[in-house]
Amino acid sequence: MPTSVDKIPEAAVPGDGTLGNIETVTEVTATQFEQALQLWTAVLGADHTIVDRTSLAAAETATFSTTQSVTAILRPADTSQVQECIRIANRFRIPVYPVSTGKNWGYGSRVPVAGSSILLDLGRMNQILDFSEELAYVTVEPGVTQGQLHQFLQARKSGLWLDATGAGPDCSLIGNVMERGFGHTPYGDHFAQVCGMEVVLPTGDRAQTGFARFPNAQTAAVYKWGVGPSLDGLFSQSNLGIVTRMTIWLMPAPPYFQAFFFQCGEDSQLAPLIETLRPLRLSGTLRSTVHIANDYKVISGLQQYPWQETGGSVPLRPDTMKDLRRRLKFGAWSGSGGLYGTRRQVAETRRILRDALKGKVERLQFLDDRTLGLASRFARPYQLLTGWDLRRTLELIRPVYGLLKGVPTAHPLASCYWRKKTPPPSQMDPDRDGCGLLWCAPVAPMEGEHATRMAHLASEILLGYGFEPAISLTLITERSVCCVVSISYDRNEPGQDEQAMACYKHLLGALNEQGYYSYRLGIQAMSELSSQDGYGGLLQKIKNAVDPNGVLAPGRYQAI
Amino acid sequence: MPTSVDKIPEAAVPGDGTLGNIETVTEVTATQFEQALQLWTAVLGADHTIVDRTSLAAAETATFSTTQSVTAILRPADTSQVQECIRIANRFRIPVYPVSTGKNWGYGSRVPVAGSSILLDLGRMNQILDFSEELAYVTVEPGVTQGQLHQFLQARKSGLWLDATGAGPDCSLIGNVMERGFGHTPYGDHFAQVCGMEVVLPTGDRAQTGFARFPNAQTAAVYKWGVGPSLDGLFSQSNLGIVTRMTIWLMPAPPYFQAFFFQCGEDSQLAPLIETLRPLRLSGTLRSTVHIANDYKVISGLQQYPWQETGGSVPLRPDTMKDLRRRLKFGAWSGSGGLYGTRRQVAETRRILRDALKGKVERLQFLDDRTLGLASRFARPYQLLTGWDLRRTLELIRPVYGLLKGVPTAHPLASCYWRKKTPPPSQMDPDRDGCGLLWCAPVAPMEGEHATRMAHLASEILLGYGFEPAISLTLITERSVCCVVSISYDRNEPGQDEQAMACYKHLLGALNEQGYYSYRLGIQAMSELSSQDGYGGLLQKIKNAVDPNGVLAPGRYQAI
Repeated sequence: MPTSVDKIPEAAVPGDGTLGNIETVTEVTATQFEQALQLWTAVLGADHTIVDRTSLAAAETATFSTTQSVTAILRPADTSQVQECIRIANRFRIPVYPVSTGKNWGYGSRVPVAGSSILLDLGRMNQILDFSEELAYVTVEPGVTQGQLHQFLQARKSGLWLDATGAGPDCSLIGNVMERGFGHTPYGDHFAQVCGMEVVLPTGDRAQTGFARFPNAQTAAVYKWGVGPSLDGLFSQSNLGIVTRMTIWLMPAPPYFQAFFFQCGEDSQLAPLIETLRPLRLSGTLRSTVHIANDYKVISGLQQYPWQETGGSVPLRPDTMKDLRRRLKFGAWSGSGGLYGTRRQVAETRRILRDALKGKVERLQFLDDRTLGLASRFARPYQLLTGWDLRRTLELIRPVYGLLKGVPTAHPLASCYWRKKTPPPSQMDPDRDGCGLLWCAPVAPMEGEHATRMAHLASEILLGYGFEPAISLTLITERSVCCVVSISYDRNEPGQDEQAMACYKHLLGALNEQGYYSYRLGIQAMSELSSQDGYGGLLQKIKNAVDPNGVLAPGRYQAI
Repeated sequence: MPTSVDKIPEAAVPGDGTLGNIETVTEVTATQFEQALQLWTAVLGADHTIVDRTSLAAAETATFSTTQSVTAILRPADTSQVQECIRIANRFRIPVYPVSTGKNWGYGSRVPVAGSSILLDLGRMNQILDFSEELAYVTVEPGVTQGQLHQFLQARKSGLWLDATGAGPDCSLIGNVMERGFGHTPYGDHFAQVCGMEVVLPTGDRAQTGFARFPNAQTAAVYKWGVGPSLDGLFSQSNLGIVTRMTIWLMPAPPYFQAFFFQCGEDSQLAPLIETLRPLRLSGTLRSTVHIANDYKVISGLQQYPWQETGGSVPLRPDTMKDLRRRLKFGAWSGSGGLYGTRRQVAETRRILRDALKGKVERLQFLDDRTLGLASRFARPYQLLTGWDLRRTLELIRPVYGLLKGVPTAHPLASCYWRKKTPPPSQMDPDRDGCGLLWCAPVAPMEGEHATRMAHLASEILLGYGFEPAISLTLITERSVCCVVSISYDRNEPGQDEQAMACYKHLLGALNEQGYYSYRLGIQAMSELSSQDGYGGLLQKIKNAVDPNGVLAPGRYQAI
């Protein structure tokens, strides 16, 4: 046994103790670690084998409290370097935690799930490897960001759109896909748009999914299932492989696009609204996700916490919120979505939507590029005419409008600074700036009753812990609604880290109990994944088979 | 070592020898087999433990030559019996080959991939377990057929449609989904419509995929990925588990439906046609698969081989085919598809389609329920007016029209009798009736050049072996086209089994060499699946981990 001074910080258990049951890899001595580091440096060069304390501390910092440690950051340049890195990790049984760009805001950023890890930062692998305008796909490495792809498409005047999440232009495409994130266009279910991956397995072997594994395959980028077992799902939300390349389908820009926006004055309108929208999603009339945000969510996109109006007290109580939304002219719920097609197709969809929403929502507005331009220019006279403060609304609408067309935006990131007392800096970094953010993302059937119950449960619990219940409901597929609850706070306020985590745990437990399980989990919640059937055992068998030394991201989505 | 007389027929290698490399399970003595049989009988009862030679011989018969043997047929009634059956198989290391209803025509029917097996026939498990009109899904057992589901929906006057394949009303829904079959409506990619499975693992454990593994999950049937690794793909086209329950999404019937049909007089029109249709599929204007059949495919749907016209000689030469199609008034290629939506949505799609196809196809016709009814009544006067022999065409059109609305039909099954000299019986059974059929189903990018090259390659090869190249091209997804090539023959003609198999091997090899790999394989071709990267090794590791005794369908999609 090494002496304590000889030991690398090892198997640190997160503050809440929930990951205490994770069996970590054999202890590594400092000597062994130094040996591994020398080998990694030989592969990557000293510039890309980072051990300075400032960088490591940054990598250990998320938007909530964590105690896991990062002992080095490796920045491979290509797939073969990734293979070398993981082979060395196997030799010394040192856990490796891969991130694409690490912008997993609200779910743990770059911080490993358990213990002490090497961070494998894939950000240098940022090549767009293949692109087809005709067949509408792009093949990318993990470091390619949504902003980069958007610029790439703009630069070549492509007729294709990507689907962007609200996580900002610097967010990795692959990172978001692997977490099964979602966006706003008809290609909003990101994992459904994947067609073939290159994966480095935990042993260092390389595998390709779909047809790409065969020589000269013509169909690797266009037909996703390949032949034989389809393994893509195995690598999403898992610790079974490191995705080093992926083909993602892109959406042809429609001849015409129109966004719609609406409001519900009262909370009681939510349930009938969901019931009305479901058949339109199911029939394909609405082809994109519809996004519905409550008042707290809307205001956190418009401004920071109203410290003045509230005299500095938190949380923002529902009655104060009501006053604010009356003054700022928005509803209990505000919705948005996009219509895509020819002018006539859009006109018909608009007719159907207008008919369906009659009497169910207020201020149903349709905007296209022309009217949005006009609105910006004539916001003031428009307000006189309609009483609607368009300028304020446009501030909120413009990024949503962009997202509906696949334009990435940093705007939603500003809401991470909701509880801060200084405004967001021009270069936002929620990890660095002490923004507190925990996201909880339960899913329910797309039914009014379920959506309302989920939202009410979340509101009650968050207010009870002194946080504002900023909630969005996204009609993410034709049959389900995903609720994203943000617990936003200031990490620099004493006690808030603990309070927020307690709130999160309470919320997750209550939602799970009602059967509203989350589609995605933060690093602090992986241990919630205990199945009641053979799934867990099966997953563990697969993990043991593909990662015999347990070096790849132990504990991630609960395979250890 | 048991003596030879003591041995159960074991590890028979198929005629072509390609599966000779499959390492089979330890040899089983007759005594051991008898012991296992007693245990199975205790679980299932004697009625459902079938060992009579007639039944076994039927189960060993496909639409092409095979030598694999079936030593007993087990017919479990529920999931727990499936678990018991597989546990007993493990104890004696006897291979088990599960089928749902076994109508895997052209790909091997019920015949196991390798050696000697127990057939696990899941046909008795034919319950529709759950159904939601509002959320548009159904949960079924493996014995539920497409005909049964169609009747179920009709009986309750449901507003939902299933997506049916051409394999006939008696084909299992789950069986087709697990082979990743496809149909004709916007829900045509069957595997994409799966939302959660119950699986009996090779060890007898039970696992559920998606959210169903959690207690009280509300979202098991509506959100497919669940949380953590998504394992559905692992069980499709594989031998890693026995699916005993599945939720399948259904399509809401549109307010209005119209089918379209068109023809291309010349083969040279195919490439520009594909180029024209691709943007319409990509943009979502055409939401369903488009099906394009060559002249040989069309005629095999209308009649049997023209023995008289040809004086009994085979194959039907292209010039004779040309004469025939002039006489019967159809083109080199005939296409069909569906338009779904409100009347105005359909009208706009029709306008776009008509504009796009102008000058590219002939006889573009749109039919709805009313015009189809009228056409049937006024076929004769219609012919006088337009010169189009509607009666003959209607015979072919009616089943296709039905499939576009999710109505299963036995009609395409009749084409299995193409080369027979007696007409198809009322109860068709291609296995029993000595119909020869080998299907080869390569996929290509949806581009004119690829579609044409695939079709020409197949035509040349089949004619060279003396078979008619009946070919369909299905625009199966937004970016890919699946070519289904039928090698149809009469198994009762001496030498034809061997000739057809040689033709198939030649065809598959040539297509693979061009990079047009098949989306699905028959039992005779599983050994073609040798990857050039780590996929094969990874799959084998998973197989060994979940099926340590190798009892489940050895060799299926090449995991042994």
